[in-house]
Amino acid sequence: MTVICRLDDGPLRFNALRRAVNGITQRMLSITVRRLERDGLISRAVEPAVPPRVEYALTERGRSLHRVLAELVAWTEENLDEIRRDRERYDDAARAEELLAFPA
Amino acid sequence: MTVICRLDDGPLRFNALRRAVNGITQRMLSITVRRLERDGLISRAVEPAVPPRVEYALTERGRSLHRVLAELVAWTEENLDEIRRDRERYDDAARAEELLAFPA
Repeated sequence: MTVICRLDDGPLRFNALRRAVNGITQRMLSITVRRLERDGLISRAVEPAVPPRVEYALTERGRSLHRVLAELVAWTEENLDEIRRDRERYDDAARAEELLAFPA
Repeated sequence: MTVICRLDDGPLRFNALRRAVNGITQRMLSITVRRLERDGLISRAVEPAVPPRVEYALTERGRSLHRVLAELVAWTEENLDEIRRDRERYDDAARAEELLAFPA
């Protein structure tokens, strides 16, 4: 998901993509880009040079998936603070219930 | 995700929800509904009866998440056949490349 979001800003070469997805290992990024290419979500262009220059870009299908993923990210950003507050309320209520059931 | 989609059709009691999410264990469904309630995505109404009747329903926040998840499901349904075809093409090309590199 993160690779798709990073490529939405434009094509990137492998190492630039790796820097943009901080924390991902070389091996994990290689596996990920191969899967995304296999699914037709990204394309891989090879420039004949020594060593060959490889550039990754979103396909139209990749861009359409990015639009849906971006909505999920926006939903999360909009709701996360309220979710955190609800979690605190839920945990407080659960602790109160526990105290009632097992008074110290 | 599946629990949210099933509750979009209307409130359900625990066992009806378990039947609707086939394959989920009682324990896993209990953990899941507690998490969703804690995140404020579903509500839990208890009818005083013996044993107490518990009904789960989507909250407004749950419904708004469902709208985004439904788009992801729709995207998947729209693209899955093409993705499968692209995977076959990718695998065929990978096999052909391998044969060239390591002729039998």
